[in-house]
Amino acid sequence: MSPKERKPGPKVAGRKEHFGRPRQRDAPRPPERRERSDQAGSSGRFWLYGTHAAKAALANPRRKFHRILVTERTRDLVPANLSPETLPPDAISRLLPQASVHQGIALLCDPLPALNLEDTVGLKPPGGRLVVVLDQVTDPHNEGAILRSAAAFGAAAVVVQDRHAPPESGVLAKAASGALDVVPRVAVVNIARTLERLGRLGFWRIALASDGDTTLSEAAAKGDVALVLGAEGAGLRRLVREHCDVSAHIAIADSIGSLNVSNAAAIAFYELRRIKG
Amino acid sequence: MSPKERKPGPKVAGRKEHFGRPRQRDAPRPPERRERSDQAGSSGRFWLYGTHAAKAALANPRRKFHRILVTERTRDLVPANLSPETLPPDAISRLLPQASVHQGIALLCDPLPALNLEDTVGLKPPGGRLVVVLDQVTDPHNEGAILRSAAAFGAAAVVVQDRHAPPESGVLAKAASGALDVVPRVAVVNIARTLERLGRLGFWRIALASDGDTTLSEAAAKGDVALVLGAEGAGLRRLVREHCDVSAHIAIADSIGSLNVSNAAAIAFYELRRIKG
Repeated sequence: MSPKERKPGPKVAGRKEHFGRPRQRDAPRPPERRERSDQAGSSGRFWLYGTHAAKAALANPRRKFHRILVTERTRDLVPANLSPETLPPDAISRLLPQASVHQGIALLCDPLPALNLEDTVGLKPPGGRLVVVLDQVTDPHNEGAILRSAAAFGAAAVVVQDRHAPPESGVLAKAASGALDVVPRVAVVNIARTLERLGRLGFWRIALASDGDTTLSEAAAKGDVALVLGAEGAGLRRLVREHCDVSAHIAIADSIGSLNVSNAAAIAFYELRRIKG
Repeated sequence: MSPKERKPGPKVAGRKEHFGRPRQRDAPRPPERRERSDQAGSSGRFWLYGTHAAKAALANPRRKFHRILVTERTRDLVPANLSPETLPPDAISRLLPQASVHQGIALLCDPLPALNLEDTVGLKPPGGRLVVVLDQVTDPHNEGAILRSAAAFGAAAVVVQDRHAPPESGVLAKAASGALDVVPRVAVVNIARTLERLGRLGFWRIALASDGDTTLSEAAAKGDVALVLGAEGAGLRRLVREHCDVSAHIAIADSIGSLNVSNAAAIAFYELRRIKG
């Protein structure tokens, strides 16, 4: 969702207005075949499916649902205060994008309400925080896997660029295996300015790049760290890299050019935690 | 490809018979629309596409091609002794599975000839070798990313189970970003027996599992290591785990169940290399 799309309408509203307050409850959406889409139009409403992703979404008080579809087998996954529709597996499949492996549960959701960087990062005590900054990682499988690892290593937030990140979708949520509803995902307009803000908050900003100046262990610091990862292929943009305190690489064999971005991220999270540990 | 399919026909033949020797050169296959498939029938013949994957395949003397399609822009990627067909990008797209991002190059290939474990592992000096064993990792994106990381960290081989691994395909090759033609991939019939063979070769066998007994650093050893990774979801099978010397886990937060298997693999490769280094 671009900022342009979000600013004027009621979809943005104040960040806090969305917490715990259902919206559009007076106008429930009737079942429609045109909802068969992973990412349905400018509302950002989308089908989230699969047991891990759905359980995490159902446990997230910030997540709003428009429909909850289950099978006889998955009914028990849904809290008693919600009213799911029970359908045969095939009927659920027909509402979802082709080849979606829904495992008997699908939720028609709104994207999560927007988060503010300083507030989000402030929820964890300073000193050992990890913030992950994604500079135009556009593949939802990659971002999903990064969210999953970020949650696994207790990251305080994952920052993405509003116009150059995948929208919330079933594919992103499935790849994140629940982490989309666990790790705070902060969308910002400008990555370079966000790095300035993180600098003011005392974060040590490490740019991960295959031609980085030092090894990751040398670049790591004991305090709060912001780890900045670039796009598949293109890597970090120059301006983004210039806004970091240090650039680091993961030492790999010459026979292969680079690691997959989610694999590089997982290694970096592990190494940063190990050094702090 | 199952062993049943491979044993009788000329496709298996002796392992060495395939090295550097083109086959079926007397009967070039005419262009056919039914080749539009990622993995074409029992021959295993498939379209490999994308610049990284194609460059690595063209540089691999063990890889045999039936057709080489390029655009005006990618002609120079093909060695002078081969004769590519130059086509518009759209015409290439029409021959490939839908939504294949071919970047102007596609190769109709045979799968690589089978490799023997002992011979393959014997190509590297003993003492610091890493062999990766995949127990029924079936998703080609995951296996591809694992191959890519295995190549990046200089693994001696990646072992997969013949009937429970993805066949060679464009998706696997693209996810591997060239590593399918760089890291030796050994298909075996039985993983437990393969672990016995690796044990006899002196490999220290580490089972990676979320409930593993020790941390990865504690489980690691200085000599040759076989790292065994289980399927997405199901994890390692009991019998496979019992054939390992030790089980190890990667310490992660409680809020998320597990890491993506390719992310766990990347961390493990990094950690094993770090400890040896």
